[in-house]
Amino acid sequence: MSHDPAAQPVFVLVRPQMGENIGAAARAMWNFGLDAMRLVSPRDGWPNPASVAMASGAGRLLDEARLCKTTADALADMDFTFATTARPRGLTKDVYTPEAAMQAARDRIAAGQRVAVLFGPERAGLENDDVARANAIISVPVNPAFPSLNLAQCVLLTGYEWRRASEEAPAVAQELAGTEWANGDEREHLALHFEDRLGEAGFFFPEAKEEGMKQNLRNMWSRMPLTRADVQMLHGMLRQMVRWKERG
Amino acid sequence: MSHDPAAQPVFVLVRPQMGENIGAAARAMWNFGLDAMRLVSPRDGWPNPASVAMASGAGRLLDEARLCKTTADALADMDFTFATTARPRGLTKDVYTPEAAMQAARDRIAAGQRVAVLFGPERAGLENDDVARANAIISVPVNPAFPSLNLAQCVLLTGYEWRRASEEAPAVAQELAGTEWANGDEREHLALHFEDRLGEAGFFFPEAKEEGMKQNLRNMWSRMPLTRADVQMLHGMLRQMVRWKERG
Repeated sequence: MSHDPAAQPVFVLVRPQMGENIGAAARAMWNFGLDAMRLVSPRDGWPNPASVAMASGAGRLLDEARLCKTTADALADMDFTFATTARPRGLTKDVYTPEAAMQAARDRIAAGQRVAVLFGPERAGLENDDVARANAIISVPVNPAFPSLNLAQCVLLTGYEWRRASEEAPAVAQELAGTEWANGDEREHLALHFEDRLGEAGFFFPEAKEEGMKQNLRNMWSRMPLTRADVQMLHGMLRQMVRWKERG
Repeated sequence: MSHDPAAQPVFVLVRPQMGENIGAAARAMWNFGLDAMRLVSPRDGWPNPASVAMASGAGRLLDEARLCKTTADALADMDFTFATTARPRGLTKDVYTPEAAMQAARDRIAAGQRVAVLFGPERAGLENDDVARANAIISVPVNPAFPSLNLAQCVLLTGYEWRRASEEAPAVAQELAGTEWANGDEREHLALHFEDRLGEAGFFFPEAKEEGMKQNLRNMWSRMPLTRADVQMLHGMLRQMVRWKERG
C-alpha cells in the first residue's frame, strides 16, 4: 500500500476533545494503512501526551499530523470533502454509506483529486458550519435506537472501507478525467467573496437570520460541482455587479 | 429490526479478560442491532461491574448474556460457526472477509440455521482448540505492518457487516424526501434573471464573447443540483445587489 499522502484520503479530526481519542483514531487509521491526519484546534492543545500514550505503534501519525486553526484551513487544498454525521439533518447533500463514500474517494483520488473526511468532536459531532463546507455526507447505518459510535470507531469503519475499496482495481470514472474542479481554497474564497459583498449590500437581513442565511449559502456552494472556470465566472459576475453599482 | 435471537448471529466472547472490553463489545453489537451474546469463562468472573459501567445503554445485552464453561458448550446448539483470527494459520478452513462471512450468515440464518461468531481473548486471540470448533474463519483485511484491532473493534466491524448484509440500504441516498428540486421552468427564469441583470451591468463584454459567456453560464446552472430554495436565494441575492446599486 502506498503511503503517498496524495494517494489516500486525509482524515480531519475537528476540535477533538480527549487526547486518548486522538491516539485511538491514529491507531484505527494505521490499522488500515492510512496515515494522513489533520487536527483542527484540539481542545487540550497540541502535542498531547495522552494521545501519544494511546497511539502506541501509530505515534508517527501524530508526529506528522498537520495542526490547523479552522476547518476551512484544513480543507484549503482539498478537492472533495465528506462529513461524517450520525444523523443527516436536511442538508440537501448526498448521503453516502461508508462503502460508497470510500469507493467514490478511491475514484476521485485515482483521477488526481485530493479527498478529505471530517470527523466531529466526541460529544456534539460536527457543527452545521463544518458540514456546510463538505460536499457530501457519510452516515454509518447504525441501529437507530442506539447510534453511539465513538470517534475512533467512526474512523475505524471509514478506514476499513477505504482499505476494502482501495484493494480492488481502481475504476476511474470517465466524467472526472480532464475536468479541473475547484478545490477547497477556491471554494472558500468564492464563499467569502459572496458573503462580503452580499453583506455590504444588506442581503443578510434581519440580523437574527444572518447565520442561517450564510449557512444556506455555504451549503449551496459546497453541494455544487463547481469547476475552476465556474468559480472564476462567479467571481467575475459579482465584481461586475459591484462595478455597476459604483458607476452609479 | 428483529431481536429474535434466532434471526441474528450469536457473538461468543471466548475467555475475555478486561470487563471494560466486554462492555465495549456489547455497545459495539447493539450499535448494529445485535443483542445475542455468550461468554466463555470470562477471566474476572461474571457478572462484572466494570462491564456494566462500560456498556452504558447496552447493559441489557450483559444481563441477557449466556455464561458458558467451554467453547464447546457455547456452540452446542449452533449449526455453523465462524472464528475471528488476525492471521489465519494454516487451518485448512475457508477464510472469509467480514463482508462475505456476514452475507453467508444471513443466507444460513434465512435458511433456518443458527450461526455463531467466536472472538478470542484480548492478547492471545483464539487458541487452536477454539478455532478447531469453527467451520470457517473470518479475517479482517488489516495493514500487515500494524494488525492491532482490539476485541471491541473486531466485534464492531463484524456487527457492521452483519447490518450491511441484513439491511440493503441505498449506497448513496439523495435527500429527496423533503427536498424540492428546482424544475426546468424555475431554472429557466433564474438563468434569464441573471442574464438580464448581468447584461445591464455590462458583464457580457466584449460583445464578441457575449454568446459564449451566456452559454457558460447556462451550462453552469444546468449542471448544478439546485433546490427550489437555492433558486429563491439566488434570485434574492441578485435583487439585493440591484437594490444596493439603486440606493447609490
